[in-house]
Amino acid sequence: MRPSGRRSDELRDISLETEVNKHAEGSCLVRFGDTHVLCLASIEDSVPRFLKGSGRGWVTAEYGMLPRATNTRGDREAARGRQSGRTLEIQRLIGRSLRAVTDLSGFGERSIKVDCDVIQADGGTRTAAITGGYVALHLAFRFMQEMGALKTLPLIDQVAAVSCGLYKGEGVLDLDYDEDSAAEADANIVMTGKGGIVEIQATAETDPFDQAQFDALLVLARRGIDDLIARQRAVLGL
Amino acid sequence: MRPSGRRSDELRDISLETEVNKHAEGSCLVRFGDTHVLCLASIEDSVPRFLKGSGRGWVTAEYGMLPRATNTRGDREAARGRQSGRTLEIQRLIGRSLRAVTDLSGFGERSIKVDCDVIQADGGTRTAAITGGYVALHLAFRFMQEMGALKTLPLIDQVAAVSCGLYKGEGVLDLDYDEDSAAEADANIVMTGKGGIVEIQATAETDPFDQAQFDALLVLARRGIDDLIARQRAVLGL
Amino acid sequence: MRPSGRRSDELRDISLETEVNKHAEGSCLVRFGDTHVLCLASIEDSVPRFLKGSGRGWVTAEYGMLPRATNTRGDREAARGRQSGRTLEIQRLIGRSLRAVTDLSGFGERSIKVDCDVIQADGGTRTAAITGGYVALHLAFRFMQEMGALKTLPLIDQVAAVSCGLYKGEGVLDLDYDEDSAAEADANIVMTGKGGIVEIQATAETDPFDQAQFDALLVLARRGIDDLIARQRAVLGL
Amino acid sequence: MRPSGRRSDELRDISLETEVNKHAEGSCLVRFGDTHVLCLASIEDSVPRFLKGSGRGWVTAEYGMLPRATNTRGDREAARGRQSGRTLEIQRLIGRSLRAVTDLSGFGERSIKVDCDVIQADGGTRTAAITGGYVALHLAFRFMQEMGALKTLPLIDQVAAVSCGLYKGEGVLDLDYDEDSAAEADANIVMTGKGGIVEIQATAETDPFDQAQFDALLVLARRGIDDLIARQRAVLGL
Amino acid sequence: MRPSGRRSDELRDISLETEVNKHAEGSCLVRFGDTHVLCLASIEDSVPRFLKGSGRGWVTAEYGMLPRATNTRGDREAARGRQSGRTLEIQRLIGRSLRAVTDLSGFGERSIKVDCDVIQADGGTRTAAITGGYVALHLAFRFMQEMGALKTLPLIDQVAAVSCGLYKGEGVLDLDYDEDSAAEADANIVMTGKGGIVEIQATAETDPFDQAQFDALLVLARRGIDDLIARQRAVLGL
Amino acid sequence: MRPSGRRSDELRDISLETEVNKHAEGSCLVRFGDTHVLCLASIEDSVPRFLKGSGRGWVTAEYGMLPRATNTRGDREAARGRQSGRTLEIQRLIGRSLRAVTDLSGFGERSIKVDCDVIQADGGTRTAAITGGYVALHLAFRFMQEMGALKTLPLIDQVAAVSCGLYKGEGVLDLDYDEDSAAEADANIVMTGKGGIVEIQATAETDPFDQAQFDALLVLARRGIDDLIARQRAVLGL
Repeated sequence: MRPSGRRSDELRDISLETEVNKHAEGSCLVRFGDTHVLCLASIEDSVPRFLKGSGRGWVTAEYGMLPRATNTRGDREAARGRQSGRTLEIQRLIGRSLRAVTDLSGFGERSIKVDCDVIQADGGTRTAAITGGYVALHLAFRFMQEMGALKTLPLIDQVAAVSCGLYKGEGVLDLDYDEDSAAEADANIVMTGKGGIVEIQATAETDPFDQAQFDALLVLARRGIDDLIARQRAVLGL
Repeated sequence: MRPSGRRSDELRDISLETEVNKHAEGSCLVRFGDTHVLCLASIEDSVPRFLKGSGRGWVTAEYGMLPRATNTRGDREAARGRQSGRTLEIQRLIGRSLRAVTDLSGFGERSIKVDCDVIQADGGTRTAAITGGYVALHLAFRFMQEMGALKTLPLIDQVAAVSCGLYKGEGVLDLDYDEDSAAEADANIVMTGKGGIVEIQATAETDPFDQAQFDALLVLARRGIDDLIARQRAVLGL
Repeated sequence: MRPSGRRSDELRDISLETEVNKHAEGSCLVRFGDTHVLCLASIEDSVPRFLKGSGRGWVTAEYGMLPRATNTRGDREAARGRQSGRTLEIQRLIGRSLRAVTDLSGFGERSIKVDCDVIQADGGTRTAAITGGYVALHLAFRFMQEMGALKTLPLIDQVAAVSCGLYKGEGVLDLDYDEDSAAEADANIVMTGKGGIVEIQATAETDPFDQAQFDALLVLARRGIDDLIARQRAVLGL
Repeated sequence: MRPSGRRSDELRDISLETEVNKHAEGSCLVRFGDTHVLCLASIEDSVPRFLKGSGRGWVTAEYGMLPRATNTRGDREAARGRQSGRTLEIQRLIGRSLRAVTDLSGFGERSIKVDCDVIQADGGTRTAAITGGYVALHLAFRFMQEMGALKTLPLIDQVAAVSCGLYKGEGVLDLDYDEDSAAEADANIVMTGKGGIVEIQATAETDPFDQAQFDALLVLARRGIDDLIARQRAVLGL
Repeated sequence: MRPSGRRSDELRDISLETEVNKHAEGSCLVRFGDTHVLCLASIEDSVPRFLKGSGRGWVTAEYGMLPRATNTRGDREAARGRQSGRTLEIQRLIGRSLRAVTDLSGFGERSIKVDCDVIQADGGTRTAAITGGYVALHLAFRFMQEMGALKTLPLIDQVAAVSCGLYKGEGVLDLDYDEDSAAEADANIVMTGKGGIVEIQATAETDPFDQAQFDALLVLARRGIDDLIARQRAVLGL
Repeated sequence: MRPSGRRSDELRDISLETEVNKHAEGSCLVRFGDTHVLCLASIEDSVPRFLKGSGRGWVTAEYGMLPRATNTRGDREAARGRQSGRTLEIQRLIGRSLRAVTDLSGFGERSIKVDCDVIQADGGTRTAAITGGYVALHLAFRFMQEMGALKTLPLIDQVAAVSCGLYKGEGVLDLDYDEDSAAEADANIVMTGKGGIVEIQATAETDPFDQAQFDALLVLARRGIDDLIARQRAVLGL
């Protein structure tokens, strides 16, 4: 029995709520249980210097966490004057994941910035951010299409992410904070709608794990991601 | 007729929603129309150095704005590596306002940090933050009382704030962003529940104003703040 | 009786000394008693990005304080690596005040930077800076006129500032440091030569104040500012 | 045929050279082909704050790259004033990997800092750093043992790392820079001497990959790491 | 004939004015012609960490320049967020020079911080700062003596500094900005009252110089410093 | 007898090793005994803003030290977020020294950046950096010549540097760390191949020194630099 009382392959209550911001071209408030991440996609008519004149666009992400999103209040990164290594690592992962399903040559020299801000945290914030960030990105492209700036959405596939881990030797899906703290290993898995693997980050927290254990985690993750992909389709009306 | 179509002395739709965060000791999501600020109060068992050994506590505030809270996405302050002058100025104002109604000798050597994060902005974020920040602070003290750490709440009065301004020569209350941009002058007024003035910040945007105009703004502000104080009482069950 | 022994409506010894720097296009050493601020105006042939191509100019201010301007030596902001919130707040106020009396369309795409550096502090540095900064700005425009770059000075009016406060319940003008520390409330008031209000910043330090008290402060401020405006006229030969 | 002309499961020329610094308690210059990383372990008699009084020690790593370690000179991070997200991500990975094989309760309240500085880069710097960092760490513990500060080495196992990737659909081991730039996917795998998995970081660069492809990468990595572990044993005389 | 019209061994008009600040324990406004530096010495009852418990004190200096001290306005270092290499180099030199004549074991575990702020610059700011800084330091020790905290002044000797340079092949003393810009070589020389050399910094600006030329510069410097030392004695009543 | 056992005019074992980096256009690993500095010269097709359109090039240097280059591990400057005053001072000195022998109008609008990174330190790192930096710079120009971008090397002379100091009243050449710590005075001298003086930095560490002592140091330095110049000629095949 895992701490949350969920079955080993059971996701938390998931919700994807759109049109949660009056300014952003695409927006999604994603909830994985008590983890709530606000994902806002903004379109800008410029690209980073290395893409100028290339005819290609860029998709990037920024990640933040409100100081009291967590159980113990953390420092405000803006006040401390620098983003932590953890923050930079997570926003790089979100950006890579979203670019993996985007045709960067399909929307001109524009940038889409997806801000993923954790309003409340209870484990799995990066996976929620990828899952909700995709919805915000999709809606921003749809906005461009409705404005007449795009004929087709430059999206190759969907992308979603989930965590899984080894708890008392058994694989469990979508860890909350208490489970994550007690896990022997945890992994964040990013996959596309068609089941392709985009990114695997697996870390032994206490003891090294073996390949059979890791394979079991991948099976769990695939199941969870299939569910998340379906929820994205539902909210996007696909 | 003002841009929003409101009467000159009409507030926007106001709401104060509590218990919006599972971690914070006091929390309030305040909405002044489309301006939404999440106010989370955190109790810490330490005080700034200048108060160590004094037996007194401290109340302070931090202010932030999500990059896409505004119509045009702004830089993330954490990424840029410093808080803007505007941010620092606002959080100093919020802190002063909350301390003005707190008995700092009434809760031991503890700090209450009130994080005010603007989720969506449409003018008047600092006045919403003060109004909602008070609710969060009040709830944090009540939490301490319920835990047995306090006999009485160390609060001398309530505090709330509202903006007002001169639009086409006439005083108007609680400006939204479009009104604020077009105003000849604007003021942020902070008052207590008993009607005492805590802070006045009035600025001519185009032409200097005269005292009669300023007096009219104070009348409007007093009316708006009375309403906000009543709404605080309602949500706090006072 | 106030600590300084002055009458309640009495300014400190005021002096405005010009041509105190061989490099700056306009310069003024302003003294409000023991508060000494060196104001140097510099003309630059460029404008901030948001004004490029607009045909308009810009006036801005920077504020600093020598580490030992104060009774207890403070950190050097350059060594600490960031300007404090107080510094940023004050220099924003000085800039707004000077722009309030400047016709920004009257001197081309140029910037005037007014550096206000506190050589010695004894309360009221921001009001001295605005009062002396105006003189430096005026002289810089006159320099441009003498160079043949301007036909008329792009100045709509004069501007000056003074502090006032409640000390033992009574209004007093132009607080020195000791008075400021002991005041129940203090206000910084910025007005034009014609008596228009440019900015009011009033703060309750101990107890909230009421409108009658605030009105009394405005009366005092107006009297002090009239005097400062006259001294500006004298030194500028207006 | 891969760009380097190596067989798909062939490592580059590997060397681990010890005693390359007269000051460090443990030192190793590791070469994976043209990638050269200097790993220096330093013992300090203090621990991070969260471990004070715990009786436990800490192992951490810092990573840097000389500006001209790469083909095109990069900015010096010290001059730019901040470490990049990539740098922080890599040094966190090295630290986690080394801690995974260290008994943190076995050497008192001391810290071992392993500095991994890339003298010349040609792909795979993080895997070389982990492999050489382990040797430096091992030697630092041996130094403590020789000084009489330790009875037994607080090391549970060895740890080493290697990269692998998909090149034209086929798995290849230990990518150099040219191969890395052309790969469809790449992975960094960290394993212990006994074959346990410590960390997997796998990323699709162009197209998502499937599980069979990923499994093939793990097989390659295991082979390479077995070789690296043997070379560590040789140089350490185990 | 040198640009300033002075004889080759002629100093600019020198003045040392004391008691120029009401707060500082020692103060001196030093003028070398149009170079004006305000030197303020502050006593603090603490020492840097490496001296705690040693019974010894510390003397250090900080250097700054007002943005418009120079002909072309420079960036404010506090706004830019870091002190330049030039600033750091100069303040290290001032500190070393003052410590060279101070008995650090003669005034307890206290620090004297000498702030040297350039109000107006015309070449030679660092040499003026050392010369005036000594006066401020001397007065601060005298203040401590008058307070009864010291029996004897912990000063071994006086210290002063002057620049010299090669202009059209000939040695000249105390270069102003125009001369400095045109010099083939320039040197800053720091000497004690007894004529001992404390520091030499000599740099070829265009062509390398030979030893005979350098020796001539030393002769000039010695003459100038003898004069500066006498002026220090006069103002200090020695 | 000096601590190192060397004769007073004896250099440490010197070596200059070239082609130590596969990427840099010029490279030299210089060893002055246990002080090892890697000097890498990089050619860039741009110049600092103040030279744009001038037809002239620029030579500059950056200096760094690995955290454990020293006996006690120092902070990593990139992690601390700023370069120390010492670092900035040294890299400015290296840049000036290299420019002193370069014809900046002889290689177009290009920059040569010479990175001097201390791999191991035992005193005299800046003099080793200048001596090895010249070799790297020379090789970079030769590289440009071989590529056909230059007809003649834009080098006027060679440049090298050495330290000397007063140890127990006697002059000694090329101080190692232990000697440097115990010296009464130390000097860093930079000279050209023809014997011209480029830079002198001499500092009294304990007592001021007199001119006869200083002259003796210059004699020692000249002897050492002659030797270093000859070694540069040997390794460069001049």
